[in-house]
Amino acid sequence: MNIAVAQSGGPTCAINASLVGVFRQALKTPEIDAVFGSINGIEGIIKDELIDLKRVIRTNEDMELLRQTPSTVLGSCRYKLPAQSEDTEVYERIYRCFEKHRIEAFFYIGGNDSMDTVVKLSEYLIGRGSKVRVVGIPKTIDNDLPVTDHTPGFGSAAKYVAATVQEIIRDSSVYSIESVTIVEIMGRHAGWLTASTCVLRANDEIAPHLIYLPERKFSVEQFVEDVRAMMAKHKAVVVAVSEGVEIPEENCRSGVVDNFGHEYLSGVGKALENIVRREIGCKVRSVELNVMQRCSSHICSKTDIDEAEFIGSEGVRAALDGQTGKTMVFRRISDIPYVVTVEATPAVNVANKEKFFPSAWINDAGNDVTEAAFRYFLPLIQGEVNIAMRNGMPLHFKLK
Amino acid sequence: MNIAVAQSGGPTCAINASLVGVFRQALKTPEIDAVFGSINGIEGIIKDELIDLKRVIRTNEDMELLRQTPSTVLGSCRYKLPAQSEDTEVYERIYRCFEKHRIEAFFYIGGNDSMDTVVKLSEYLIGRGSKVRVVGIPKTIDNDLPVTDHTPGFGSAAKYVAATVQEIIRDSSVYSIESVTIVEIMGRHAGWLTASTCVLRANDEIAPHLIYLPERKFSVEQFVEDVRAMMAKHKAVVVAVSEGVEIPEENCRSGVVDNFGHEYLSGVGKALENIVRREIGCKVRSVELNVMQRCSSHICSKTDIDEAEFIGSEGVRAALDGQTGKTMVFRRISDIPYVVTVEATPAVNVANKEKFFPSAWINDAGNDVTEAAFRYFLPLIQGEVNIAMRNGMPLHFKLK
Repeated sequence: MNIAVAQSGGPTCAINASLVGVFRQALKTPEIDAVFGSINGIEGIIKDELIDLKRVIRTNEDMELLRQTPSTVLGSCRYKLPAQSEDTEVYERIYRCFEKHRIEAFFYIGGNDSMDTVVKLSEYLIGRGSKVRVVGIPKTIDNDLPVTDHTPGFGSAAKYVAATVQEIIRDSSVYSIESVTIVEIMGRHAGWLTASTCVLRANDEIAPHLIYLPERKFSVEQFVEDVRAMMAKHKAVVVAVSEGVEIPEENCRSGVVDNFGHEYLSGVGKALENIVRREIGCKVRSVELNVMQRCSSHICSKTDIDEAEFIGSEGVRAALDGQTGKTMVFRRISDIPYVVTVEATPAVNVANKEKFFPSAWINDAGNDVTEAAFRYFLPLIQGEVNIAMRNGMPLHFKLK
Repeated sequence: MNIAVAQSGGPTCAINASLVGVFRQALKTPEIDAVFGSINGIEGIIKDELIDLKRVIRTNEDMELLRQTPSTVLGSCRYKLPAQSEDTEVYERIYRCFEKHRIEAFFYIGGNDSMDTVVKLSEYLIGRGSKVRVVGIPKTIDNDLPVTDHTPGFGSAAKYVAATVQEIIRDSSVYSIESVTIVEIMGRHAGWLTASTCVLRANDEIAPHLIYLPERKFSVEQFVEDVRAMMAKHKAVVVAVSEGVEIPEENCRSGVVDNFGHEYLSGVGKALENIVRREIGCKVRSVELNVMQRCSSHICSKTDIDEAEFIGSEGVRAALDGQTGKTMVFRRISDIPYVVTVEATPAVNVANKEKFFPSAWINDAGNDVTEAAFRYFLPLIQGEVNIAMRNGMPLHFKLK
């Protein structure tokens, strides 16, 4: 039998590690012959644009390099599979592609939108009596998928954000005058990545002094009061704010939406900067960590990269066990020592759903997170990958 | 005799390494007793706010940690010393502070503004018959100081920018649709840091496809033509633009100036993003690397950090030789193998002057740099510092 794998949605540092997980497990599995990579997610299956991964990933060094290369080596897509009732043509094309290449299992590495594809496609194939199994491998820096303890890609993003915010703290505190620095962090409507900055307290950092998440209603008045209170205690105040925080008084939505109807968010940091300048009048700066949060693999979390590979390999085992329409998920056994296992859950439990940061982990004032959050986050950023360098820069794997 | 050292101007990853250079060389020098650190640059001397560095830097581990901690451990300032003719009071206070603490040499780590202080203060002290020597140790991520081959802090900034732009290249190229990504890079009115992105070609990257520097007049019309031409060849076009590029047609100056009359620049990347959206209409994003360029020590250049320490130690030797009113500079002996020496030059040659990126190193089209620029930059980003990690994050040295 042959298998196929595709990558979808926004980049992370760990999507390629999950691809390596699928690939390496396939190499260990005598029943599996070819491993096809689908170019630009499910679009590659629809258009029959496949590459034989054994021809491009040729050595253990290639696998290691690919594991530490950010983004999606096979490209990505934001394609939403139509309902079967609307369009059977595209399903027919996918079916024919699988038939043509003797593909009996398809692995889709992606977020909650991609799990929608896993659900629809597996239902179609079952309905048609096909034996092709469809298994979803989660990924997202937003950490907003239900069921799973956390998502591959999140730990590396959190590690980059923590290291960078720590450096911004050093940078912000050099002058003798009072200042406020606002750091805007990704996560869409979920505050996980912003909340994860609390890990800095493990290294005795007091900052970020204030943390604002989209899960709590934002009040401009309260924010100004919070900042003033912190300025009374600290010369250089650092604020972490999630891009998903809504400030109805300020216009900081882009109005642009993607194919799934998600609005691109931006500008909350700038809005808070303007509020501080207007209401307090001190030196203030906002910093947007931008796409670096999802692609800065040079400081990725070894825990994250290893887990991303592992969950990919477990996906292959689940498919060989005959499972389909499933998403692989992490279950945390304990924080200290940190232990997780991998399980399969019906993809319908994950598809198109968001998991928000728990309300119980936000402090009463709505401007910080609790000790329980700290315990949850800290294990996810542990360990460093030995990054291959050439000419003073990280070396990336590229398709020839 | 005692000595004092201070740090001034904007943060870099290498200012603390130069401080360690001064400190370690002082420890090796039997004539030197106390090493005082002045808090917030020359302001600490004026206000008599000094700390005994031997009490806070106690072990070799402390020195190594401080070497890899970004920003200025002693704080910084943007204080401009008045002319002697305008105000002798402040000079008198500095003189008294030196007398009181038996300080016979003062080391000022900073940029071209700080070298202005070195010139004025050394002239005052000579005029007064004082034997206190004043020596400047350069630093700036902008690399815009005259005489010296390059400045400490630049190599680490260039390494961070190269690694990050490479990751942004991976990030930008995942989707099947055409896109343009604009990366705005610091450097004030000099294009050095933006130009340094050409080092990516050592790792077979084609991008950044276009490089725009303030040293060449910018034409919106030509820019749009350049981008269209690159889009015909590459699906995902990446553009590096210096914050100092002026676009008269677009309003991207902040209008805010610092104590030296320098205007804060921002928004060129956003302006180019708007131009692409308006004129070409494809998917476009701008990314501002912001303060991370000057404080991301987690991926600093070992060459830079070692050189920053070395030039600090050479400053101490120059002062002990009786030199004053000097700035320490690098002279490059060869590119391959890379060899530099350190010399002292009159600070007046460096103070208040800017060194621009050579016109001869810009291509005729004004949208890229030459092979000579590549040979200049590549040695400066070589080598990695073994960053101390704790709890999954870099460990920073802090004053207790």
